[in-house]
Amino acid sequence: MRPTGPLHIGHYFGALKNFVEMQEDNKAFFFVADWHALTSDYADTSRINEFVDEMVLDWLSVGLDPNKCTIFRQSQIKQHAELHLLFSMITPNSWLERNPTYKELQQEISTKDLGNYGFLGYPVLMASDILIYRPNWVPVGQDQLPHMELTREIARRFNYLYGETFPEPQAKLTPAAKCPGLDGRKMSKSYGNGIFLSDTMETIAPKVKSMFTDPARLRKSDPGNPNVCNLFPYHVLLTDADKQNEIREGCKNASLGCVECKKIFMQSLEAFLAPIHERRAAITKDYIHDVLAKGNEVARKNAEETMRTVRQQMKLV
Amino acid sequence: MRPTGPLHIGHYFGALKNFVEMQEDNKAFFFVADWHALTSDYADTSRINEFVDEMVLDWLSVGLDPNKCTIFRQSQIKQHAELHLLFSMITPNSWLERNPTYKELQQEISTKDLGNYGFLGYPVLMASDILIYRPNWVPVGQDQLPHMELTREIARRFNYLYGETFPEPQAKLTPAAKCPGLDGRKMSKSYGNGIFLSDTMETIAPKVKSMFTDPARLRKSDPGNPNVCNLFPYHVLLTDADKQNEIREGCKNASLGCVECKKIFMQSLEAFLAPIHERRAAITKDYIHDVLAKGNEVARKNAEETMRTVRQQMKLV
Ligand code: SF4
Ligand code: SF4
Repeated sequence: MRPTGPLHIGHYFGALKNFVEMQEDNKAFFFVADWHALTSDYADTSRINEFVDEMVLDWLSVGLDPNKCTIFRQSQIKQHAELHLLFSMITPNSWLERNPTYKELQQEISTKDLGNYGFLGYPVLMASDILIYRPNWVPVGQDQLPHMELTREIARRFNYLYGETFPEPQAKLTPAAKCPGLDGRKMSKSYGNGIFLSDTMETIAPKVKSMFTDPARLRKSDPGNPNVCNLFPYHVLLTDADKQNEIREGCKNASLGCVECKKIFMQSLEAFLAPIHERRAAITKDYIHDVLAKGNEVARKNAEETMRTVRQQMKLV
Repeated sequence: MRPTGPLHIGHYFGALKNFVEMQEDNKAFFFVADWHALTSDYADTSRINEFVDEMVLDWLSVGLDPNKCTIFRQSQIKQHAELHLLFSMITPNSWLERNPTYKELQQEISTKDLGNYGFLGYPVLMASDILIYRPNWVPVGQDQLPHMELTREIARRFNYLYGETFPEPQAKLTPAAKCPGLDGRKMSKSYGNGIFLSDTMETIAPKVKSMFTDPARLRKSDPGNPNVCNLFPYHVLLTDADKQNEIREGCKNASLGCVECKKIFMQSLEAFLAPIHERRAAITKDYIHDVLAKGNEVARKNAEETMRTVRQQMKLV
């Protein structure tokens, strides 16, 4: 994950929840992609260290456990840069130019400079990040599938040129979780429409109060429609199933008003966030740095082992 | 220098001669650019180690002295890869695409695949190789001037974004030395038309015999023209000045024949190559590896020092 700011509950249901489950039965690696953050945010790096610490804090607060998985910071594992350079030699520009995300982002984002060499090549860096740990699979969202395909293509090309070295890791799709922003747009730090894992209930209360619901429901006596309501998807994620059904019925038959519904939501949110906030409160800066130091070491050892093989295969020793 | 095969006397007069002079009054760094060799020769790396050793042997044989300069192997200094990655984030693709060498090489060389990401970015790698030692100047040939300009542009952009870090190194042009191939084309390993520093006089004799001279001079009794003769430029480089004048006159007034002229050339060559061959004979594989090990260490220390500053400036620590 790129450290570009605090994580919201969209991140939780879209990724972190899975990460926490994964750490139980796998040798899992999770890293803060600070070099990746530079591909688009090179111009202002002033807060990058703060964001890195914050991201690890968010991860630990939701239950990632450094005794069960490896948590590290990309830029501390120099081997990624070496592998990136070597992969750059065997990756056709045409593979990068046809990357759909590349084109989309260039069209979508006009506020940032995306015309740099490193932005064109970020799938090459991503392939290095992945393949250097020779994983069987990688948890990704739908939008990352083209990058996983490119990663496999680079692995295949390397294996073809220099002999069998890398596995072709599979993409493990994170089950999609509908989690719109409070205003109905995509939940995003830059829109300021998210509920963050670090938000207190006091911060959250006014946000929930101003949340959009069924726009056709003007009075409590109007029947509502949960399917078009921007709040209901959150109940699906956070409120237990029985209660969900009650809400759905109450909304449709106008026995439950939006104000009441939001109160239930606040309770669900509080139940969800309480253990996260509790863990969070116990985590010191020093602990975060210890976790990273330990994780970096494990990652470095694994990465260096791969690089030894890579250099041998390429005869660069 | 890229390790793509043995060095010929064109390399000597075009570069090495200068290197040897430079090591006297400067803190000079010379490196075997094995990662660079991959930009075009990634597909066959089987001989790269052999070429690296051979190149260092060539350097030592002409008088580069590891006690006076630092001789190292690029791929052993991982910091170059890290800086390359960081520079890639701030280098516009447009700077790379307008690079005249890039366009030329892509048009000229059809036998190699030059469509890779790494080939597009090799000036970025070059800028890293240079700037990581924060030099005042770099000895280059005319054809490298666009790369030096790009290197300065990258230095300026980095300094502008993250604060004064790199000097803007100047290009120090190696005095041009006319040294055509034996057949009049450019001297090049791939044309097989060069005299190599490692060639014995026995290997050289038939090459010189078949060298082109003034094509209009069919018989000794025809007056010759040194200005159109393919051999005469070698006399300019290798034969002492008095003798050169004699040859010029003798050629023009037909008192000196080409066969005789080539004999004089063989003597000049022998005088030039004797000390080179003598040094060469005394150098063992072990010594080459010691030189590289020692040089790599010095280079690594210098490069790491720069990288510490770079990471601080970019707040990546
Ligand atoms: S009652 Fe609840 S689900 Fe129905 S519209 Fe209001 S907020 Fe949405
Ligand atoms: S005499 Fe010497 S300089 Fe004149 S044409 Fe023959 S080889 Fe060339």
